Amino acid sequence: MADPTQHLTALRSKLLEIQHLKNAAALLSWDQETHMPAGGGQARAEQLATLQTLAHAKFVAPEIEDLLLHLVDPATGLANADGLDDDSKALLRETWRDFSRARKLPSDFINRLERECSLAQQVWVEARRRDDFLHYLPNLQTIVTLKFEEIDYLGYDEHPYDALLDTYEPGATVSQLQPLFATLRRGLLELLAHVRECASPPDDQVLFQPYDTQQQLAFGELVLRKMGYDFNRGRLDLSAHPFTTSFHPTDVRVTTRVFEQDLPSCLFSCIHEGGHGLYDQGLAQAQYGTPLGEALSLGIHESQSRLWENNVGRSKAFWTHFFPLLQQYFPAQLGSVSMDRFHAALNTVKPSLIRVEADEVTYNLHIMVRFEIELALIAQQVAAKDLPGLWREKMQEYLGITPERDADGVMQDVHWSMGALGYFPTYTLGNLYAAMFFEQAHRDVPTLETDIQRGHLLPLKDWLNRNIHQCGRQYSSSDLLRRITGRPLSVEPFLSYLRAKIGDVYGFQLAWHA
Amino acid sequence: MADPTQHLTALRSKLLEIQHLKNAAALLSWDQETHMPAGGGQARAEQLATLQTLAHAKFVAPEIEDLLLHLVDPATGLANADGLDDDSKALLRETWRDFSRARKLPSDFINRLERECSLAQQVWVEARRRDDFLHYLPNLQTIVTLKFEEIDYLGYDEHPYDALLDTYEPGATVSQLQPLFATLRRGLLELLAHVRECASPPDDQVLFQPYDTQQQLAFGELVLRKMGYDFNRGRLDLSAHPFTTSFHPTDVRVTTRVFEQDLPSCLFSCIHEGGHGLYDQGLAQAQYGTPLGEALSLGIHESQSRLWENNVGRSKAFWTHFFPLLQQYFPAQLGSVSMDRFHAALNTVKPSLIRVEADEVTYNLHIMVRFEIELALIAQQVAAKDLPGLWREKMQEYLGITPERDADGVMQDVHWSMGALGYFPTYTLGNLYAAMFFEQAHRDVPTLETDIQRGHLLPLKDWLNRNIHQCGRQYSSSDLLRRITGRPLSVEPFLSYLRAKIGDVYGFQLAWHA
Repeated sequence: MADPTQHLTALRSKLLEIQHLKNAAALLSWDQETHMPAGGGQARAEQLATLQTLAHAKFVAPEIEDLLLHLVDPATGLANADGLDDDSKALLRETWRDFSRARKLPSDFINRLERECSLAQQVWVEARRRDDFLHYLPNLQTIVTLKFEEIDYLGYDEHPYDALLDTYEPGATVSQLQPLFATLRRGLLELLAHVRECASPPDDQVLFQPYDTQQQLAFGELVLRKMGYDFNRGRLDLSAHPFTTSFHPTDVRVTTRVFEQDLPSCLFSCIHEGGHGLYDQGLAQAQYGTPLGEALSLGIHESQSRLWENNVGRSKAFWTHFFPLLQQYFPAQLGSVSMDRFHAALNTVKPSLIRVEADEVTYNLHIMVRFEIELALIAQQVAAKDLPGLWREKMQEYLGITPERDADGVMQDVHWSMGALGYFPTYTLGNLYAAMFFEQAHRDVPTLETDIQRGHLLPLKDWLNRNIHQCGRQYSSSDLLRRITGRPLSVEPFLSYLRAKIGDVYGFQLAWHA
Repeated sequence: MADPTQHLTALRSKLLEIQHLKNAAALLSWDQETHMPAGGGQARAEQLATLQTLAHAKFVAPEIEDLLLHLVDPATGLANADGLDDDSKALLRETWRDFSRARKLPSDFINRLERECSLAQQVWVEARRRDDFLHYLPNLQTIVTLKFEEIDYLGYDEHPYDALLDTYEPGATVSQLQPLFATLRRGLLELLAHVRECASPPDDQVLFQPYDTQQQLAFGELVLRKMGYDFNRGRLDLSAHPFTTSFHPTDVRVTTRVFEQDLPSCLFSCIHEGGHGLYDQGLAQAQYGTPLGEALSLGIHESQSRLWENNVGRSKAFWTHFFPLLQQYFPAQLGSVSMDRFHAALNTVKPSLIRVEADEVTYNLHIMVRFEIELALIAQQVAAKDLPGLWREKMQEYLGITPERDADGVMQDVHWSMGALGYFPTYTLGNLYAAMFFEQAHRDVPTLETDIQRGHLLPLKDWLNRNIHQCGRQYSSSDLLRRITGRPLSVEPFLSYLRAKIGDVYGFQLAWHA
């Protein structure tokens, strides 16, 4: 009988080949968003479908099943071979999980899904530009139909939405999220009520005057470098919608956008995507191709971007060091502005139409709107054609405002055209995780606050590398959270953090301590 | 017994999947040259090797062999099924040719070759920058060893070099090229002697004064548009070394470079790459994935770029329309320059070190230097370590000059680091084909000269589309040449064209008619 390490070595080699195919596909997608000429869209959809179908077929092939069955008990999904270390056991548990899911999906389905999503994204771009939902509706309907088909293949215990959610946040369920979101909503609406009662709210006009775009980009790059983002293993480009993509820990790319009249857009895109980029650059290179070299979940990924963007990038500690630098970049605009006033401007709270521009208090209300719409869609309580109306209703209910244009409403996000239903809740999970991680980082690194005040961001990066990035998928999200913080997921750390900061900015902090 | 069209349909479907893989690899290579961060090189080499190995394995798989053996007689390599049209017969002939070659190469060899070439290119870039041949020598030695291995797999009748040449120019052999090159050399050296005797040669200093780079790029784009290059199916980027790449006829990308003190560099890069781009955009979309939708050979490809660059772009007819426009772009530099003086400046002849900057008379002498060095290398008469010295000797022999730096000598071209030994002669073939095609185009389209004088370049593009691009690999190079021109390949049309133009510019035209 062969040594299990031989089977494991053979398995790793096959996984590596599949990872190369997936990352080739990721480059094709990156290029589609950044450089591809419009006429190339149909061929690109075919190329992407071919690569993803091939990667899927190679993964569910009998050779991989044979190797896995030498190493894993299919009844428990856990490693059953002797002499395996904890890393190998985790690798096998996660590979089995992926394999079990993947083989439920027929090759032909992957091919159709990939092609339709690539095409739908291109149609969505055009429909959004023209504010023409009906132009995009047929593609959206196709995607929704494909998602019902996917749910049938994958199966579920409680709610059909769980099948989709599990793709992005393994183990998360509707029944877990609903009470969590309800508590969060109450806390946020209370906070919003206090903000609305404030007689002299901070003014953010200072952020929306002309700022030279080259200087904005230079400052964004400076912050990225200080965060420890490695430009020898990455690059910063412009794109319509900022994103991070990775083809290996040695090639992790972030994008931003820049508007002359909008200082926060470029700045926080850089920091946000930089947080994602640090995660991908920090993954264990030796584990590349296996689940131990992969990000744990989208919620954990988002925790990294939001921690840097908000907990760090909108803090007084951060601007203690960086505001004097920013003043040197923009002396005319900021030379006579105080750091406190600038910090307050960055933390103003105001319901608005666009999720990615939302403040920290209203951001998660945007997510709840999307979560409820997706639930209704998957429960077949609403059809794709009725989404613009439902969107307006929910925006009114949660945020008290209604978009006039679908481009600023139901068509603002790329996710549904990408087939990524079930993705949005991971943004809120990311915010909750970020607050818990950031609290714990301060406990573990007592000098963290003063480090940040001095512009020394590497101690925080190192803590994140060590505690989160290097682990890959060794633990589940909830296990990782408990290992790091000793506590289960809760909304309280996030609400406490927000109450303290927003209370400080709006001058009602005492009320909360009463 | 199944209908041959069923087998053919199945074959086309499999070829299409392989083409998608190859074009994904082409995008990874394009990205390596244009955007990839330096640290990503090792992972990229692995990804490229994976894709190419997979494409190769899928092509030589038993399923393809079975399909081919239903349709092709392996003894003749020709279609033997009844009821096939000429297109299908050509498709099968060429697919069998590719298949027969590909299956001689083991999968493991493809994997090693692709990885080593990707790495060697990256080392070459650095070595060239540092002018350090020894830094690059180990990679070059590896490539040469792999090429010997490849020759052993492929086999040959007369000369081992033929095995390599056949990859780029099917059917070409050393015994065919050597007398052709000898005749050409004599003609060029005679012409060069006349140029050297000229008492008042034209002055090209007007081309090498400061020209705004944005204006240069704008003019290059204008010419590309006038040539009929479709920007909805293409794009123009900057890169260190201009090139054209294609992922489908709907996504064909050209690059250029731009130097403030050098007007011809950007201008002729745009036109040259535009010629390649028109070929790739002009391939038959319905035949994509099959040999009928592929370029015929590198020589024919180069004929398209050189025809546009030289026969058109360095002609008086072309500048009759475009020089007044160029004067509007650069009034300070060109406002008081006559078109004749400008045309003469573009056609000055002077031996120089760098192939891609060479004039039309000396260009092919650069190719002969490389051809002879490659022949000596493949015949094992010289080792890789001795190439810098041999390069200097041959440059002295053919062009009468010697490079001081290897960066301007043996390391100036990317080809050897790409594993592309046997490629250089196709450049000279391209020049010879271009002269013959351009002559014939004038016969077929009597208004061509006046069209070009009026800036109407589409009649030429259409002629090339119809006669060359749309044919794909339906005919061999020599058959295509004979179909179009009625004549076999010869150096005379090229020499006549050069004698007329250079004689005109240098004032010795009468001597040639004597």
